[in-house]
Amino acid sequence: MVVIGGGNVAWHLSKQFSNCKSINLLQIYNRNILSISDLNSVATITDKVDEIKIADIYVLAISDNAIKDMLDFIPNKKALILHTSGTTSMNILNKFDRIGVFYPLQTLTKFNEIDFKNIPILIEAKHKDDLLILKNIANQISDNVQYINSEERKKIHLAAVFVNNFVNHLYSIGYEFLEENNINPSILIPLILETAQKLVNYHPKNIQTGPAKRKDFITIASQIEMLENKENKVIYKLLSDSISKQYE
Amino acid sequence: MVVIGGGNVAWHLSKQFSNCKSINLLQIYNRNILSISDLNSVATITDKVDEIKIADIYVLAISDNAIKDMLDFIPNKKALILHTSGTTSMNILNKFDRIGVFYPLQTLTKFNEIDFKNIPILIEAKHKDDLLILKNIANQISDNVQYINSEERKKIHLAAVFVNNFVNHLYSIGYEFLEENNINPSILIPLILETAQKLVNYHPKNIQTGPAKRKDFITIASQIEMLENKENKVIYKLLSDSISKQYE
Repeated sequence: MVVIGGGNVAWHLSKQFSNCKSINLLQIYNRNILSISDLNSVATITDKVDEIKIADIYVLAISDNAIKDMLDFIPNKKALILHTSGTTSMNILNKFDRIGVFYPLQTLTKFNEIDFKNIPILIEAKHKDDLLILKNIANQISDNVQYINSEERKKIHLAAVFVNNFVNHLYSIGYEFLEENNINPSILIPLILETAQKLVNYHPKNIQTGPAKRKDFITIASQIEMLENKENKVIYKLLSDSISKQYE
Repeated sequence: MVVIGGGNVAWHLSKQFSNCKSINLLQIYNRNILSISDLNSVATITDKVDEIKIADIYVLAISDNAIKDMLDFIPNKKALILHTSGTTSMNILNKFDRIGVFYPLQTLTKFNEIDFKNIPILIEAKHKDDLLILKNIANQISDNVQYINSEERKKIHLAAVFVNNFVNHLYSIGYEFLEENNINPSILIPLILETAQKLVNYHPKNIQTGPAKRKDFITIASQIEMLENKENKVIYKLLSDSISKQYE
């Protein structure tokens, strides 16, 4: 196998693949060698496209808009070509016959080691045999492997934007508001962890609390007043309205 | 001590106080006896205001707008009177001399047992001696007790609305979008847990990812298109704009 890419996903997957017994991770390619330099402990690294080795499987863990152009540099036209993107259809790889997707549904940050056993790995392949290959690999990494087609994966990725990117942005707003007021934001961490942990037992709709749900317009008005940042006032209003409507 | 209230906070605090060695929990009062019936294992319960017992400490774990009226029914004018609200100033209790606040910064749901040891308990009192009493009680319940005045507490509560109420609403939107598309939303749980867990090691601003951060306007447009609910389109746009601006 050859992994292509030098970002968060390439970093984590290279480590995972290098620990799979059935995989021989030959090489990691990235146009910028510095961002993969620490991966030379798990495989040979290169930044030269014409040095990409012949392999049976290529994993393109690169940004969505770079996938298509990268295909020209894959030296084995009979190989199984995978991408790792949530939003991109498998068909972008159609220049090749043996194609598939290996998408870990998780927020991955370089150097932040994480247990992959619980991470859903969403796999898809054009050919049945290749799907079995993917399944076999994914099962060595995670206990939560699911067959998901490109349309479903796009929907899951969109939901992930809400529960990860947008949620993390609300964390930022809360943190920065407290920092501006000289309060250490780490006071919020137990609340944040429990808010997430509750989903193991409850549907989020059934555990909503707070001023918007109980239509406490006095508290809502005083909190909007307290926010100094205009954009955060708009976010506060919009999300409060949306919550209030949900519990009418 | 007498606890007044029958909601989530009253339920949890009654259980916690009943386990404190230095507290004799005499009674729990609520206007609706049914919602406290299961608490008769930890104290006497009543729904009659004129039967509220004489005690040294009264804990008003009731909704913000009910606090003022409830004060008329406290039979011991020399007692220490506490409320448990994040948004309400301590001064609302000014009809009494010995007043204070005992605010657990956590999302509490009845019957959902939770370890209080890590929950920040924010305490405030008008008199030094009473603050020591509160500190002594809070220390028996949690390892994270902090002196926070009413102004600071209001700010922390506002931040909590962002990281709890609003975050939980984004969970709801993600869940419902997948449910409408016949995908089991529990696939999101590992991502949600890790997104929260990351804050133990990182500031949220330093770990943002996704289409809005990298200004991937093609993905953003296709995701807005994919959302059917108009209001969710507006939320998606507003939060994406806000993220994009943060990383300019």
